[in-house]
Amino acid sequence: MSEYIEPIEILAEKFRRLPGVGRKSALRMAFSILDMTDEEVNAFADAILAAKRDVHQCSVCGNLTDGDICSICRDESRDHSVICVVEDARDVAALERVREYTGLYHVLGGAISPVRGKGPEDLTVNELINRIKNGGVQEVIIATNPTVEGETTAMYIARILRPLGVKTSRLAYGVPVGGDLEYADEVTLNRALEGRREIT
Amino acid sequence: MSEYIEPIEILAEKFRRLPGVGRKSALRMAFSILDMTDEEVNAFADAILAAKRDVHQCSVCGNLTDGDICSICRDESRDHSVICVVEDARDVAALERVREYTGLYHVLGGAISPVRGKGPEDLTVNELINRIKNGGVQEVIIATNPTVEGETTAMYIARILRPLGVKTSRLAYGVPVGGDLEYADEVTLNRALEGRREIT
Repeated sequence: MSEYIEPIEILAEKFRRLPGVGRKSALRMAFSILDMTDEEVNAFADAILAAKRDVHQCSVCGNLTDGDICSICRDESRDHSVICVVEDARDVAALERVREYTGLYHVLGGAISPVRGKGPEDLTVNELINRIKNGGVQEVIIATNPTVEGETTAMYIARILRPLGVKTSRLAYGVPVGGDLEYADEVTLNRALEGRREIT
Repeated sequence: MSEYIEPIEILAEKFRRLPGVGRKSALRMAFSILDMTDEEVNAFADAILAAKRDVHQCSVCGNLTDGDICSICRDESRDHSVICVVEDARDVAALERVREYTGLYHVLGGAISPVRGKGPEDLTVNELINRIKNGGVQEVIIATNPTVEGETTAMYIARILRPLGVKTSRLAYGVPVGGDLEYADEVTLNRALEGRREIT
């Protein structure tokens, strides 16, 4: 159903491919492009092309960077003996917001998921093993998502790393801070009980 | 606060200018661009540039077109004696969806709004007058928005058109079909009562 002229329909169809954008929002976005100045529209198109062209994965950890090695791997003040393993570069940003963790990262590029046909060979597991074999790493914190797939991946990596003699840990499960016990699911509550800590 | 590398922050900032997009959505959109293929990204940027470059206002009615005169004005099978006056080209699309109206349109390019410093001279009122003076128009249906500004604009246009001897009407006000009387505001209910029609 083509209600609008072709250039608008084509543009709206592109906007629809963005996450969380339906047809109505996509059309509003397409119209807002028409309302922009030529300079704004050119800058918009350029920003899209530049992001795709300039953003690469860090050759060490897989985090996003516009250079060869990301700013975290380059940072000499960080603790290079700890590696936090995450699924996605967005998880690096989430952990960086906490401003507590000072070690390095390793981005897997997803999680093991038989349903999506994703196995360990599709992740940067070998790169992680090589980083550890190169020496200097004392602890690996596995921070994959608290999902079935993230958990499977964490178990797999923990097993793979065992022969390398490096300390391996997993993020704690429990009730989220500021959450409401009433709305916590049973699995989370069970993990929170299991992981209870003595008050001293 | 710049959490991400520059190309991503710049792109997210562009997405934020789109209607209804906050920082989190903008970042998700920017990341989704990285996940696209080069071809998809180029097609996206091209669609933005093409829409801005190719979409113009119809030289007759002000509706959006990628040619000189829009498909509605060119359509010989439509009733050229009726003009429906709307604020925006999006309103044309809304009325076209009804598939009942077969006349032409006239897009004002907004409504009279002293608050936003928009007067009648900023709208295509003179173009409307010229179309009527050129002859052949028998009725003008004013379909500006049911807002204070739309109403002001409707009253202004009706007054301007009076000396031209053309029949002028306004869209009916009333309760929306499928709506709930309980939630209808007083002004709408009052208009619905005033505009009540005898059941015969």
